[in-house]
Amino acid sequence: MSDNKGSKPKSGGGKKKEVKKETGLGLTHKKDDNFGEWYSEVCVSGEMIEYYDISGCYILRPWAMSIWETMQSFFDPEIKKLNIKNCYFPLFVSPGVLEKEKDHIEGFAPEVAWVTKSGKSDLEVPIAIRPTSETVMYPYYSKWIRGHRDLPLRLNQWCNVVRWEFSNPTPFIRSREFLWQEGHTAFATKEEADTEVLEILELYRRIYEEYLAIPVIKGKKSENEKFAGGLYTTSVEAFIPNTGRGVQGATSHCLGQNFAKMFDITFENEKGEKGMVWQNSWAYSTRTIGVMVMVHGDDKGLVLPPKVASVQIVVIPVPFKDADTKGIYDACLNTVETLKEAGYRAEADLRDNYSPGWKYSDWELKGVPLRIEIGPRDLANKQVRTVRRDNGAKVDVPMSQLVDKLKETLDDIQQNLFNVAKEKRDACIKVVKTWEEFVEALGQKKMILAPWCDEEEVERDVKARTKGEMGAAKSLCSPFDQPELPEGTLCFASGKPAKKWTYWGRSY
Amino acid sequence: MSDNKGSKPKSGGGKKKEVKKETGLGLTHKKDDNFGEWYSEVCVSGEMIEYYDISGCYILRPWAMSIWETMQSFFDPEIKKLNIKNCYFPLFVSPGVLEKEKDHIEGFAPEVAWVTKSGKSDLEVPIAIRPTSETVMYPYYSKWIRGHRDLPLRLNQWCNVVRWEFSNPTPFIRSREFLWQEGHTAFATKEEADTEVLEILELYRRIYEEYLAIPVIKGKKSENEKFAGGLYTTSVEAFIPNTGRGVQGATSHCLGQNFAKMFDITFENEKGEKGMVWQNSWAYSTRTIGVMVMVHGDDKGLVLPPKVASVQIVVIPVPFKDADTKGIYDACLNTVETLKEAGYRAEADLRDNYSPGWKYSDWELKGVPLRIEIGPRDLANKQVRTVRRDNGAKVDVPMSQLVDKLKETLDDIQQNLFNVAKEKRDACIKVVKTWEEFVEALGQKKMILAPWCDEEEVERDVKARTKGEMGAAKSLCSPFDQPELPEGTLCFASGKPAKKWTYWGRSY
Repeated sequence: MSDNKGSKPKSGGGKKKEVKKETGLGLTHKKDDNFGEWYSEVCVSGEMIEYYDISGCYILRPWAMSIWETMQSFFDPEIKKLNIKNCYFPLFVSPGVLEKEKDHIEGFAPEVAWVTKSGKSDLEVPIAIRPTSETVMYPYYSKWIRGHRDLPLRLNQWCNVVRWEFSNPTPFIRSREFLWQEGHTAFATKEEADTEVLEILELYRRIYEEYLAIPVIKGKKSENEKFAGGLYTTSVEAFIPNTGRGVQGATSHCLGQNFAKMFDITFENEKGEKGMVWQNSWAYSTRTIGVMVMVHGDDKGLVLPPKVASVQIVVIPVPFKDADTKGIYDACLNTVETLKEAGYRAEADLRDNYSPGWKYSDWELKGVPLRIEIGPRDLANKQVRTVRRDNGAKVDVPMSQLVDKLKETLDDIQQNLFNVAKEKRDACIKVVKTWEEFVEALGQKKMILAPWCDEEEVERDVKARTKGEMGAAKSLCSPFDQPELPEGTLCFASGKPAKKWTYWGRSY
Repeated sequence: MSDNKGSKPKSGGGKKKEVKKETGLGLTHKKDDNFGEWYSEVCVSGEMIEYYDISGCYILRPWAMSIWETMQSFFDPEIKKLNIKNCYFPLFVSPGVLEKEKDHIEGFAPEVAWVTKSGKSDLEVPIAIRPTSETVMYPYYSKWIRGHRDLPLRLNQWCNVVRWEFSNPTPFIRSREFLWQEGHTAFATKEEADTEVLEILELYRRIYEEYLAIPVIKGKKSENEKFAGGLYTTSVEAFIPNTGRGVQGATSHCLGQNFAKMFDITFENEKGEKGMVWQNSWAYSTRTIGVMVMVHGDDKGLVLPPKVASVQIVVIPVPFKDADTKGIYDACLNTVETLKEAGYRAEADLRDNYSPGWKYSDWELKGVPLRIEIGPRDLANKQVRTVRRDNGAKVDVPMSQLVDKLKETLDDIQQNLFNVAKEKRDACIKVVKTWEEFVEALGQKKMILAPWCDEEEVERDVKARTKGEMGAAKSLCSPFDQPELPEGTLCFASGKPAKKWTYWGRSY
């Protein structure tokens, strides 16, 4: 519940406690008191995640997987419209190929998992598991691309990748294996590559803003933070107010011609001249789901945006002793039927071993956007009671208006989740101009917008000077939407002339 | 072309040679002369597969991947209708868990790939890559299943698995990494499990027969051939006439209560009594695509069934010197537009650097089910010429009847591919009653139906006695559809009383 982030239960605290006592449901940790524990608990209790017996690996349960599938069913047709085709390259990479692009492998080497045995035999050569597939794919791009008619080559794959990280594993956000899509494209010209980078970034923005109801900032990564071996990196950046950390939501890289050089990806143009391709790669991962949980979840559990919720509406019978129980149950089933026919993802909870109150808590924990209650009075009045997960608002809706009214309500929930998240995010943005202001804002867990000289050395210096228990600050992105930068504005960190506004902060 | 399997080009050999000379297209190997080389060539030249620099790993190119996606878009909604939900479990398994079910691990141990290092550090404990996910999942089934209300638990995942096999890697058919779906379900009763085994097997039959146009036999595996650790295995079995080998198309296993015992998956029933769950697991993989290539492909290349072809109809302009080239090109584009609107997957090939003849060969190589040619005469007559990939039949179709006529044609191609494949498969089935007949039929590459005593020892003996260069014979399945077995019929191999009819042969 977006207005219920405090550490105390909102209204009817006593009643709530009663329900908790009765049910054993509800969360032990509060989002504002101990965010880390709360996050872990809400992921598990909300049945998104199960912890696995190998550290840093997590089980994605159906409740999370369906969200992944919903995003996929948006993104996949969109890239197909752009004539991007799906393929599947192997999980394994031979060491020679992996190490071909030096900057690239430097970025990934410490996290690469190596297969050295099969059965009881040692492999002749250890084989790497892909941390990403540039080096897996590009030797074949070199083979497949001969002339300008072979371009553009635009492929994508949905797969798992492995990065054996040692720092602080977190469900969805930082895991040793994760699911993603990775697009890899090659063009004859830089212009085409540049255009695609932004087209894809816009799709990523839409995933976050339209599906997950999370505001993101589109921008360009600094030289220090760009993709290892690439030319430039764009990203959508989200922010978690509770921890004051930015989170890279998804990235769309222009690789320039660097990999093309290393892997000899050349083509003959219309005039018979040899050219080198321009390449992009871009990806979003199951991290998206973690950001959604962090941003919208509350002390009652998950809060799912209607567009991605696998159950949008749950219908719960509220029988009373002398009431027409069968009539109520039938009304629930009919309501679900009506809603399903109208295209909603709806479910009735007719379990007879739980009280309505227990069920309310259970579905709140799981984050279902809208609850419908049907009791004797509703039956008599030919209405249902609707209760919103996002703000707790209760409205009686005549059965005759159900379908239309619920469309409005779900749209409104989707929009409200975004608005509330944006308000909170915006309240965390702090514009600073000096180092003192920067340090103060960082202490206040802000997402800091500061004028910067755009020098790599200075970013390294900022990192070094802010090192500490909470982790160092770094640049998040330089937003495409740049505020005015008056002549003579100085860099907050170096005092040199500033070249652009850049977001800074701690990050995941 | 189904009636063009001979080593000589069918009609117009001279013309064909001319095209080959002109184009450099066409296959070097003939399906009947050197099946292995032909298969490998058709997979690569048809752009289904690219060989990868790690042996036994293959790149699935878009032309293959789209077939996988089409099957997925049939199967996934079907299992969702059965209330089976998608999830994702980790790629990695810890050794203790992997080895918990003894028979099971014995079946897989020699093929398991082990990760022992990350970056430059050795892992404390080596970690296995899943060869299948029974042992990955079932510890959590044990955790999630408490009471009868938690049942049935029906999960599925789409993922990659790794089996580091050393015998003869073959694209799609036997690869060290492959894609599949694996369903894992748990029920309160054996009856429910039994029912599901057959429901899923029927979906597998439909994938082969309705989508891939390949006849399969539904049946039960022998004790020797059943899934390691399971109770019984059912399968759909296909057959490759050229090699005389059976191929296990997909399997639906009843695991019984064996894994439930090992992993302690118990529940309390309505009366408060403790019970053990009954489990199934079932899978089909990218192997399906290989079977399709092997069964339908011919000396001109791939032959794709319309229901799975990513391009069902290709439209090729046939301009002449003085003809209205622009008019022809426009007609091609309009035709594609019309077809797409009618729901066909159609594409125009307007490349200006290739002759129509070259394009014909190119799309034949890629197996597109139907070609449309549009030349000046067609333009004048308001018609198009259609040419079928399966039998080469050429028919002129008035533009006004295009959509309806093409539906008929594509349906007919789909049906004809199945019929031809079934005729050929049936011609390979040999009923034998004695060992001598069996050996003779095996030498003739038959799929052998023989009365069997159903004793494990006897199957081992058959394997031992048929060992040789081509590989030993084994049982393929005992078909559900059993011919009559007269009293007193003896086992072909042991001379003991026969219990059932069983298919035997060499297999992939």
